[in-house]
Amino acid sequence: MVQLEKHPMKNLYAEDGSPVYPRQGPYFSDGQRRVDYVLTYQIQKPNSIRRQSSRFGDNNFIRRLWRSLNIRSRRAEAQPKEDPEIAAQDQRTDYHEDDKRFRREEFEENILETGLELEMDERTNIPGIGFMKVHAPWNVLCREAEFMKLKMPTKKVLHPNLVEKIRLFIHKVTAPLHPKVDPNRPQTVKFLSHPFSREKQHLLLANGVYTSAYPLHDLLYEQWASYSFFYKYQPIGLIRKYFGEKVGLYFAWLGVYTQMLIPAAIVGVIVFLYGCATVDDNIPSMEICDPRHNITMCPLCDRACSYWKLVTACGTARASHLFDNPATVFFSIFMALWAVLFMEHWKRRQMRLNYIWDLTGFGEEEEREESEKAKVKLTCTDRLPAYLTTVVTMVFMILVTFAIVFGVILYRISIKAALHMSTYSDQSNIRATVKGTAAVINLVVIIILDEVYAAIARWLTALEVPKTDKSFEDRLIFKTFILKFANAFTPIVYLAFFRGRLVGRPGNYLYVVGSYRMEECAHAGCLMELCIQLCITMLGKQLIQNNLFEIGIPKLKKLLRRRKSDLDSKQEEELNRSLYRHEKDHILGPFVGLSPEYMEMIIQFGMVTLFVASFPLAPLFALLNNIIEIRLDAKKFVMELRRPIAAKAKDIGIWYNLLRGLSKVAVIVNAFVISFTSDFIPRLVYQYMFSVDGTMHGFVDHTLSYFNVSDFQPGTDPLQPMHLGYRVDICRYKDYREPPWASTPYELSKEFWVVLAARLAFVVVFQNVVMLMSDFVDWLIPDIPKDISLQIHKEKILMVELFMKEEQGKRLAARENHNQDNCNSPSSANQSPPRPRSRPVSHANCC
Amino acid sequence: MVQLEKHPMKNLYAEDGSPVYPRQGPYFSDGQRRVDYVLTYQIQKPNSIRRQSSRFGDNNFIRRLWRSLNIRSRRAEAQPKEDPEIAAQDQRTDYHEDDKRFRREEFEENILETGLELEMDERTNIPGIGFMKVHAPWNVLCREAEFMKLKMPTKKVLHPNLVEKIRLFIHKVTAPLHPKVDPNRPQTVKFLSHPFSREKQHLLLANGVYTSAYPLHDLLYEQWASYSFFYKYQPIGLIRKYFGEKVGLYFAWLGVYTQMLIPAAIVGVIVFLYGCATVDDNIPSMEICDPRHNITMCPLCDRACSYWKLVTACGTARASHLFDNPATVFFSIFMALWAVLFMEHWKRRQMRLNYIWDLTGFGEEEEREESEKAKVKLTCTDRLPAYLTTVVTMVFMILVTFAIVFGVILYRISIKAALHMSTYSDQSNIRATVKGTAAVINLVVIIILDEVYAAIARWLTALEVPKTDKSFEDRLIFKTFILKFANAFTPIVYLAFFRGRLVGRPGNYLYVVGSYRMEECAHAGCLMELCIQLCITMLGKQLIQNNLFEIGIPKLKKLLRRRKSDLDSKQEEELNRSLYRHEKDHILGPFVGLSPEYMEMIIQFGMVTLFVASFPLAPLFALLNNIIEIRLDAKKFVMELRRPIAAKAKDIGIWYNLLRGLSKVAVIVNAFVISFTSDFIPRLVYQYMFSVDGTMHGFVDHTLSYFNVSDFQPGTDPLQPMHLGYRVDICRYKDYREPPWASTPYELSKEFWVVLAARLAFVVVFQNVVMLMSDFVDWLIPDIPKDISLQIHKEKILMVELFMKEEQGKRLAARENHNQDNCNSPSSANQSPPRPRSRPVSHANCC
Repeated sequence: MVQLEKHPMKNLYAEDGSPVYPRQGPYFSDGQRRVDYVLTYQIQKPNSIRRQSSRFGDNNFIRRLWRSLNIRSRRAEAQPKEDPEIAAQDQRTDYHEDDKRFRREEFEENILETGLELEMDERTNIPGIGFMKVHAPWNVLCREAEFMKLKMPTKKVLHPNLVEKIRLFIHKVTAPLHPKVDPNRPQTVKFLSHPFSREKQHLLLANGVYTSAYPLHDLLYEQWASYSFFYKYQPIGLIRKYFGEKVGLYFAWLGVYTQMLIPAAIVGVIVFLYGCATVDDNIPSMEICDPRHNITMCPLCDRACSYWKLVTACGTARASHLFDNPATVFFSIFMALWAVLFMEHWKRRQMRLNYIWDLTGFGEEEEREESEKAKVKLTCTDRLPAYLTTVVTMVFMILVTFAIVFGVILYRISIKAALHMSTYSDQSNIRATVKGTAAVINLVVIIILDEVYAAIARWLTALEVPKTDKSFEDRLIFKTFILKFANAFTPIVYLAFFRGRLVGRPGNYLYVVGSYRMEECAHAGCLMELCIQLCITMLGKQLIQNNLFEIGIPKLKKLLRRRKSDLDSKQEEELNRSLYRHEKDHILGPFVGLSPEYMEMIIQFGMVTLFVASFPLAPLFALLNNIIEIRLDAKKFVMELRRPIAAKAKDIGIWYNLLRGLSKVAVIVNAFVISFTSDFIPRLVYQYMFSVDGTMHGFVDHTLSYFNVSDFQPGTDPLQPMHLGYRVDICRYKDYREPPWASTPYELSKEFWVVLAARLAFVVVFQNVVMLMSDFVDWLIPDIPKDISLQIHKEKILMVELFMKEEQGKRLAARENHNQDNCNSPSSANQSPPRPRSRPVSHANCC
Repeated sequence: MVQLEKHPMKNLYAEDGSPVYPRQGPYFSDGQRRVDYVLTYQIQKPNSIRRQSSRFGDNNFIRRLWRSLNIRSRRAEAQPKEDPEIAAQDQRTDYHEDDKRFRREEFEENILETGLELEMDERTNIPGIGFMKVHAPWNVLCREAEFMKLKMPTKKVLHPNLVEKIRLFIHKVTAPLHPKVDPNRPQTVKFLSHPFSREKQHLLLANGVYTSAYPLHDLLYEQWASYSFFYKYQPIGLIRKYFGEKVGLYFAWLGVYTQMLIPAAIVGVIVFLYGCATVDDNIPSMEICDPRHNITMCPLCDRACSYWKLVTACGTARASHLFDNPATVFFSIFMALWAVLFMEHWKRRQMRLNYIWDLTGFGEEEEREESEKAKVKLTCTDRLPAYLTTVVTMVFMILVTFAIVFGVILYRISIKAALHMSTYSDQSNIRATVKGTAAVINLVVIIILDEVYAAIARWLTALEVPKTDKSFEDRLIFKTFILKFANAFTPIVYLAFFRGRLVGRPGNYLYVVGSYRMEECAHAGCLMELCIQLCITMLGKQLIQNNLFEIGIPKLKKLLRRRKSDLDSKQEEELNRSLYRHEKDHILGPFVGLSPEYMEMIIQFGMVTLFVASFPLAPLFALLNNIIEIRLDAKKFVMELRRPIAAKAKDIGIWYNLLRGLSKVAVIVNAFVISFTSDFIPRLVYQYMFSVDGTMHGFVDHTLSYFNVSDFQPGTDPLQPMHLGYRVDICRYKDYREPPWASTPYELSKEFWVVLAARLAFVVVFQNVVMLMSDFVDWLIPDIPKDISLQIHKEKILMVELFMKEEQGKRLAARENHNQDNCNSPSSANQSPPRPRSRPVSHANCC
């Protein structure tokens, strides 16, 4: 039953090596053994030997081109040197060339000892670069497979029942959505990486003994890395086989996230449309827009501003209703549950992938570095300064973020005041200008700080000298996450919870930095401005960071390079075709890990869930972005980066925890947005406690307090009190305070406390109800899909049956022989029954 | 390196079979093969054959005794028939005796086929009972070990570094706390149960083919099951080897819980003592006790009661301070974190046990029943009625609980009113009587309902026909938990959150069932009464349920049995010594699972964490109870029940989830107790918002509203208005309402809303801060202890090294022979290197 092919690699990949350019196929010079991994190094005399030197007429020109490319790639090489220890060592031991060669030879000997096969190639098209090609023979792969406890297929169990039929039908219906991948490709043998070479890779690279190390690209997925397939499922199985489980999981996760965004986007649009449809039935905004109400408001700034009529805020009030209506509350709850469902769905998908990829028995990533670095053991006291530095720097950087946000606020206040002072008096134009420039400044600051923070996080993590690469990565991710998150969300949090709240009241305003009054919100709350800010941040970040940085800059670089080398496209193509695969890949940029991709998505997830109460269109924007993002990342990984070493992973690691944390925080943030930022609670309280007829009529009047203009502090009363054409004795402002004629004028009124209690009660109820529902959903959906657990169970039974049969056969044989001592002798290889699936592949069966 | 003993069982257990009674040792008649399991059945002619019939003079007498015991044990047998299907089958197939014998023979043949060995024993001391003794030979054990992926020790790795030395020192210091167990006992071989017999056990039992099935007791742990060792650690390793992992985990968990209760109890006592020490400095109670304040309170009931002076509530106010002081808030936070720490500590302990017991690779409990019962597949529509019944019954039962609690309330109200009406006028005595009887009624109802609910939960779960035994158990536990929890906590929740809140106000009281006014609290809040209720429930439940039910009743039964059989103790002892082990064990009660033990502890955990804010002594009470509980359970398991089949388990299953859920709920419940039940928030608000001098002086006056006695509803004013000796115009009551002379008399005042907002704000802040701290603690403490993960890592490296060496040796050999084809032939058994630890035990090595 166990059908092991002797050279399955050939079967797998032969179909892509076209006979026209056989020398380009990734094989050794014998055309038989496959190149599994490549190490490159600097040769002392690059011009000494040249194979095929007569291929191009202009020899010097190609050499020139390669030299420039080579410099570029060496510069890019600097990035993987993340480890501070190694970096330090790097400077100490700048080996002499002979020393390097000696080390290389020693290393090569060690490699040969482990059973790998090597081929040196110094006569390449790229002068100055020597290639060491590594081939892993089948028995080495088998041994490593046993180490890593890879699973082998034994028997196919298929029970085409009703469920299966339904699934087949669904598959048929959704066929156009699936990528065209041949399902009959042999999927039994895994492409392995060699842990031992990984282990020493960056040590050797850092010493300058080798200049780079990579496996080779061999397939391009025309069915995946193209924008025209945005509506199709991704061929996750192939991605995983090509890039390894880690990258496969990233794309699977991104796929699940994008898929889950579809219902969220639809509901979001419906909520938004509901707001649009009901804007004309909204009594508060009708009252504001009704000129008969004729409410005189207190001035918005000292001296320069004058009294204004509430009816001028009509537009803002109507726009606010789009985002501040009862449907938003429903949408918040929906999105909180959506986040939980998303996590659950991903857990199940991950489980399914684990099953399909045979990772169910695979443990945690082995941390082999530990044994190497454990020699330099650091005690707690050694580490303390680094940790202190980290905490202090992090706090400082977050304070810097706050300071910058505060700076933008000051900018807004001062510019506004200055514009008011000037003769130019078109209020709405002033506002638009100030808001626009402030948002753009915010955005630019965020994008710049993002890059700065990434560098700082890297530096801080290096200071801590983590024990393992995994720990390094986790710490780096955590720090970067905190900094970037603070950076992205500080302005939004300010808008949502602080703006317009620290204003004071007429006659007793709060002043900052001399005589600047704090900003107020427009009449209908700050929700509208929060919404604009979110919109700009999301769109801006996505447009600039993704499209400009990820597409634009590489294109620009390519253009510049081409212009420099004076090659036309035809010549370049010709050159391209003349190169071996391992030479071509040498030009590509190195793979720097998945962290930036994940980080981008996590921040987006934060935008989608945290402030969804104020911006129901966020999921739609995210969806549109992600559809592009998947293909963009695919293109980048396949075309523009060296093929990463296939890394095994069972889950997405720390990112899952961050997502989970975010979806928890989202519940409380949304509760606060609904109860404190929006006018939802005051409206409810008015309707059920204070309204005389149980309707919303009179709500606007109820939210406005009275102010006697004679109570203005000296020098703050308006310069043009007659601006409206009549004398104003009493003006109104938005707050719940006692009127001037009460026994305690301008104190917070009973209404204030009633509304506050209602807001807080809403937070308590909302948070606990949503948390309960989330936990319930979490509990309701099993982590392992039913069909998978059934399948696993069936396989177990099958294994037990096989095993029992073997046992019985043996006992019978033993009884016949009456020889109890031959129990230790194993059954011969010919009649050996198949090994059960969950046992590791025995090396005895392999060779 | 692998030292496998041929008959390790003998080595293990021989030391306890004393040579004086060799026939009592649990061996087959050859004295060599051990009895691993026993099945009993009814013999048709109990008197036909009698071995050793001449042992006692009075033959009839012994027969009589045995018959009575036999009836008892058969009655007890009814309990394991939990499965409804089987129960139904039971009635259908009441086989004829011959039929039964035929089935037995068939079954025995099957057993022999699997390789087990049998010995029949019908000539026993117990007439009418045949014993089928089962022995599992070594090779069968090996095969099953491979199925279950048990691990084998290969090499001992010990690195006595500084940490190890410190640990040794600690071990030495705490030596008297450790039980005296020989550490050199061979711990390498596991005692195995036979899954295939477990599988069919209750089927056969239910058919009446066999009457009972059990493995044998063989060791008694003098170092464990005795109260005199209450201060010692438990010998968990031995417990696990004797009872299996499942029971071992229970006792380990109970040990960890009890251990963790020590710090909680200490802090609780300190908090209580703090309350005692500061009771004289407490300004509010001083003000109440100060006769100069002379505050006249409104009557506590209609007509019969009259006005009273606040100074009479002095005692209650002072007592309340013991439980209602700032230290309680600290203690609540402490206990929330304690619960998280407990969960974390347990997770780590479980991990350590998993490592020590070699369970790290062991998966979920295999659900083998599934394949048997899957034949009777039930669709959703078949199940719907059962589910509906479950939901309806559960809701109904919870409503019954509510009704009973409400009934007790009514009892309290009406008795109080009746007593007030009578001439007997000692108020404090009346109160004490009513409170005492009500609490006792509550307690009795709780204990009775507990038993009823357990039966209902069992019935409902049986209706649902769960697919597997595990699923049956989980559903049963979940239902029982909900019902018992509602039962235990409804009166407490009522006291904490509803009593005294639904009263109405003087002149507008809330009446229930005709003319009964709802209960009020004493002046200083309901915290005191909540505390008394908790105290009674905890102590009463523990005293009655544990000590009476678990110790008293078995003792009583034994006494009755002895009186019936007219045996004096000496005769009985003689009889006892004459019996075989398997005959002795037949008399014992069956093992009914761990659920009741866990359930008891979970409810206790709920008491300790949920309302800890109102009763800081709860951990102390729990601690005292548990110290007894451990030894009580131990005695029961070792002496009074048949030995349970060793069941493997990696964790405590659903109980962990229930604990986790409880500790989550505890946070919000404590937040509400502090902010709504205690006067903590009103005091804070008064001090920082309303107090004129920033102290608590005037607080009592501030909390009392004014009532004009002319506003009493007709017929509700007191019969004796001059009771206090003077005419009362204005009386006071505890509430925040406007005075009679305000524009809106008796409306809720601004103070009410301020206090409410503060209470809710406290809930929000408390809940989120504690949740954040809990998550932080959870994140800070790694789930796997550092030394264990290091050890696992070291073992992995060792394994890789061994494996590499083997590989190298083989390659060298292969190279020497120049024979690539013999790669499939395995190495001979003699020179075979040790298998790495994480690989299953190969059967080839076993025999």
